[in-house]
Amino acid sequence: MKSITVAVDAMSGDGGSDINLEGCRQALLGDPTLHVLLCGEPEPLEAACASWPAGLNERVSVRPSNSVLAADAGPALALRHGRDSSMATALQAVHDRAASAAVSSGGTGALMVLARHVLGMLPGIERPALMAAIPTASGLTWMLDLGANIQVDADRLCEFARLGHVALGTVNGRAPAIALLNIGSEPGKGPDAIREAGRRLAADPDIDYQGFIEANRVFDGAVDLVVCDGFSGNVLLKSAEGAIRLMFGQLKTSFAGSLCGYMARPRLRRLNDSLDPSRHNGAPLLGVRGTVIKSHGAATAEGLAHAITLGALEARRDLSAAMAAHLWVAD
Amino acid sequence: MKSITVAVDAMSGDGGSDINLEGCRQALLGDPTLHVLLCGEPEPLEAACASWPAGLNERVSVRPSNSVLAADAGPALALRHGRDSSMATALQAVHDRAASAAVSSGGTGALMVLARHVLGMLPGIERPALMAAIPTASGLTWMLDLGANIQVDADRLCEFARLGHVALGTVNGRAPAIALLNIGSEPGKGPDAIREAGRRLAADPDIDYQGFIEANRVFDGAVDLVVCDGFSGNVLLKSAEGAIRLMFGQLKTSFAGSLCGYMARPRLRRLNDSLDPSRHNGAPLLGVRGTVIKSHGAATAEGLAHAITLGALEARRDLSAAMAAHLWVAD
Repeated sequence: MKSITVAVDAMSGDGGSDINLEGCRQALLGDPTLHVLLCGEPEPLEAACASWPAGLNERVSVRPSNSVLAADAGPALALRHGRDSSMATALQAVHDRAASAAVSSGGTGALMVLARHVLGMLPGIERPALMAAIPTASGLTWMLDLGANIQVDADRLCEFARLGHVALGTVNGRAPAIALLNIGSEPGKGPDAIREAGRRLAADPDIDYQGFIEANRVFDGAVDLVVCDGFSGNVLLKSAEGAIRLMFGQLKTSFAGSLCGYMARPRLRRLNDSLDPSRHNGAPLLGVRGTVIKSHGAATAEGLAHAITLGALEARRDLSAAMAAHLWVAD
Repeated sequence: MKSITVAVDAMSGDGGSDINLEGCRQALLGDPTLHVLLCGEPEPLEAACASWPAGLNERVSVRPSNSVLAADAGPALALRHGRDSSMATALQAVHDRAASAAVSSGGTGALMVLARHVLGMLPGIERPALMAAIPTASGLTWMLDLGANIQVDADRLCEFARLGHVALGTVNGRAPAIALLNIGSEPGKGPDAIREAGRRLAADPDIDYQGFIEANRVFDGAVDLVVCDGFSGNVLLKSAEGAIRLMFGQLKTSFAGSLCGYMARPRLRRLNDSLDPSRHNGAPLLGVRGTVIKSHGAATAEGLAHAITLGALEARRDLSAAMAAHLWVAD
């Protein structure tokens, strides 16, 4: 496997540099051809890596940045004060070809606007969109958008479908089955924008369009990609997260102190792990010129390692070049 | 307890009149002061009730209607061809004061438009809204809207909050804690309409407004009512349903054939029941002049009985009069 360098925003995220460093260490352990470019305060980062074994620390370098954006920094603040931040430094490393992908656990709005500013957009794409995976009956299903595109028209929904078509097609080697999230499966259901996008996608010979999908059916895993606006996507993802946490809480109470509960524990833990969103941490930011992965602000070290590995995989498949080559401009 | 009559659309819903009759029978068994007015084809309904024991069949009567609206009949079709339907007949019984509440498992769009047409709207309320309960850590949390109001402005969101404030306040005897569904809890997050509604609700001394709530936190049960547009509400509810079904499916597979699975079965069944949306079947349609309960199209007999009992409870608390008296017209 060819060696690949991933730039990691080492300062952002709820856990700060400690979690980021441990995530990088785990990713390096899991992939001997991976190099990590840590972006952040040089002294503490270099001191921490110095204690790692030689096989790891020779695959780490540091790109200095002495500022970090707050998790809730909005787009305006990010553009005004964030151009030297650890997040922007990681994106700049991709722009300078010092790294093949950038990973950050910072805020979504800031990442979208800085990625657009530093890397630029692909031809015909208006704004970046965020694609994330959720666990379903068939394994994983991707959702797009989960970013800050909260009010979208038919053009944007079709743009999301095209972005996801090329991205998943490149990474998986086959065209993804795509559906539009709606409140009913009949063609007459839902808002105008979704119905219009449905008509256009059905007429597009390149897209494997499967029609409308209701939120409950997403978990059947019958499609590879669900296209929606960022608000609905956020609600779907977080509702599932909340319902699963509620159910595990009630299972725990119900089994508490019983032999059966003791016996069931390993099974429940495995199930919790398989449904845990942090296991699937890492959301590709699509539409920008370069590979960028958004990691959850509350990501664990294991979660960050997963996001870094995803960035390395996309870079190896040359997703960014494929996106530039295969994206066709909207009619 | 004073005797109360609930009109039941006996023909709508996936299970047809069989399920509806069995649901009515269960509701009558559970409440000796309940009367049911069955709306639908008189001969088969009367024949079925004739076989019931005297204590039940003397509390049933039939209001004839020989047409039934298809489950997917839209508002236009409902208004054109549905005015003699079993659904409209049940609503008419409330209008004529032959019944204190109407229950139907027919389509949401048809029920909204026929209820508005037959009963009329409360002062200052533009369109009916649907309020439904979801299981959360504290028991039940209500969501409003889950109806056909898919694109809403700040006025409508504030209207939903007022409707829910009066409805839950009347039924529970205390003002509900209300939050607005959003993709973040900070005041600057989300679409304009939600932020504007948040500002207005915060300034309203009557409303116990708790700010924005994210979809995952809804399941903590910290608020009594979550206000949202009908699209997001549908996505939240169905996503939770899909995630819980996925999890039960995986639990079943994981436990299959094991002693532990055998021992865990009663606990899992109880948990499944407590989280099963059909156990909480019955969504009050708010804003119309009269008590109307929407039952799920796929409701079981037990689910329909629950919806009928809810209709009787609301009628006993005189919700409709309370709504008319306490609703204040929007600024």
